Order: sequence, then C-alpha cells, then structure tokens
Amino acid sequence: MKKIAAFVLVATAAALATPAMAQFAKPEDAVKYRQSALTVMATHFSRLGAMANGKAPFDAKQAAENAAIVETLSKLPWAAFGEGTDKVGNTKALPEVWSQQAKFKEASEKLIAEAAKLNAAAKVGTLDALKTAFGPAGGACKNCHDTFKAK
Amino acid sequence: MKKIAAFVLVATAAALATPAMAQFAKPEDAVKYRQSALTVMATHFSRLGAMANGKAPFDAKQAAENAAIVETLSKLPWAAFGEGTDKVGNTKALPEVWSQQAKFKEASEKLIAEAAKLNAAAKVGTLDALKTAFGPAGGACKNCHDTFKAK
Repeated sequence: MKKIAAFVLVATAAALATPAMAQFAKPEDAVKYRQSALTVMATHFSRLGAMANGKAPFDAKQAAENAAIVETLSKLPWAAFGEGTDKVGNTKALPEVWSQQAKFKEASEKLIAEAAKLNAAAKVGTLDALKTAFGPAGGACKNCHDTFKAK
Repeated sequence: MKKIAAFVLVATAAALATPAMAQFAKPEDAVKYRQSALTVMATHFSRLGAMANGKAPFDAKQAAENAAIVETLSKLPWAAFGEGTDKVGNTKALPEVWSQQAKFKEASEKLIAEAAKLNAAAKVGTLDALKTAFGPAGGACKNCHDTFKAK
C-alpha cells in the first residue's frame, strides 16, 4: 500500500509538473515513444526522398500524404527527451541532448520548421517543389543526428 | 553538402520500387514501423483516456491536439501487415491477421472511423463530447487486439 501510494505520488508529481503532452509513466516509455515517433517520421520521409531523388516515380497525392505525416510527427519526439531519460533502455541519444539543451531545442525547432515547409511544398504538387524543400529538411535531420545521436 | 547528399541517399535507399504507402525494404522494417505507429497512437490515446476517465484534468486544447494525432496515426499501421511479415522480429500479431484478412481489414477500418469521430468530438471542446467518443474508440482498439494480437 505504501509502495502504491509512493508510486501514485511520483506519477501525480510528474503529471502536475509537466504539460500533458510531456507525460510518461516511466523513462523507458519516453524512450520507446520518441524512438517510435522518429521511426514513423523517417519511414515517410524516406518515401519522399525516393521521389525527390528519382528512385521512385513522383506521385503528387502520395507525396502530399507522406509530407503531412512527416509534419505531424516532426513535432512529437522532443517532449520525450525529459530529465532522467538519458541513459535508459536502448537510447542512442548522446549526453549532449541534456548538456546542450538550447542547441538541441534549436535543432528540433529547425526540423519542425523544415517539415512544415516540406509539407507546404508537397501540396504544390510538383516534383520541383518537393525537391527544393527536401534537401533542407534532410539537412535538419542530419544536423541533429550529427551532434545528438550515437553513430 | 556532400555529406548531406550521402545522408539523404542512405535515407532513401530503403524506399525503392513499390507503392509508396506500402513500401518496406525488409519485413523487419514493416514490423518496426507498425509497432511504432501503434505505440505513438496508444500514447496519445491514453492521454485522452486519462481526461475522459477523470484521472487528469480536462484541457480542451490538449484533447484536440492528442485526438488529431490519434486520427493521423490510426491510418498508418495497416499497410505494414503485408505478406511475409507474420513471423518476423518480436511481432505480437497472430496468424489470424493473415488467415482472416477481411475481418482484420474491417477491424482496422472500424478503428480509423472511431478515431475520426474521436477527433471531431475533441474539437467540440467539452469533456462530455470527449467521453462519448472515447468509449467506442477504446472498444475498437480492444476488438482488434482480442482477435489479432497475442496476449
């Protein structure tokens, strides 16, 4: 009973301290969630890349669908990099995520901005528009991985 | 620039040749993708559940954000249950997914429909509207899990 009470207290404290979008019962859940969001985003991003790089035929409807998913997912992982989730499970996040928080925030906001541009570009419905936006979006992925993700 | 190009090339190499929404280089990728999409969906669904069940204070803006994500994610996992992905990795999908394809499709479409209703209800901005839509949406999750997911 005491254990349950303590757990509830911890869970409640976490719920009160952070907005609902950042709530995870356990640090492991946060890691699983952020990796999942990044996996889904990367899958749809790579499909846009195949079109942008001429490896798959350009299809305006599919490009728009994929880009909309990328934009939605681009906003999600960052709230799950909270304190205490730095050495959990099979995370590939480097300590720099927490020691350089301003830079990490800037990198994530850059990705969110580029994903929004990519989605807007995909809605134009031309391969040229997609190509123009795809490079900078890929750059924003790489920029963050270079500093904050283990190889 | 060359590094970015190489990064983008690696990111896109996975996505060659098949229809954009159903593409996976390896069966393992499909399993990882569908589990990731379901994890992200479940996380946001559970936040709506906390509000609907009085475990967290109702916040109309957060409810709307969570429900929009649930609707987007509800459409994604199903294309990743293709042939050859039935006994791969740590999948919990039962053989019934492939032996009862019409029933599985119906169950997934039910979830998609309920997630759309849930999103519409969340936009109303009242706890009552959220509660009304949450039950049937949870039922659609359970309905599919009961038949198609290992315990």
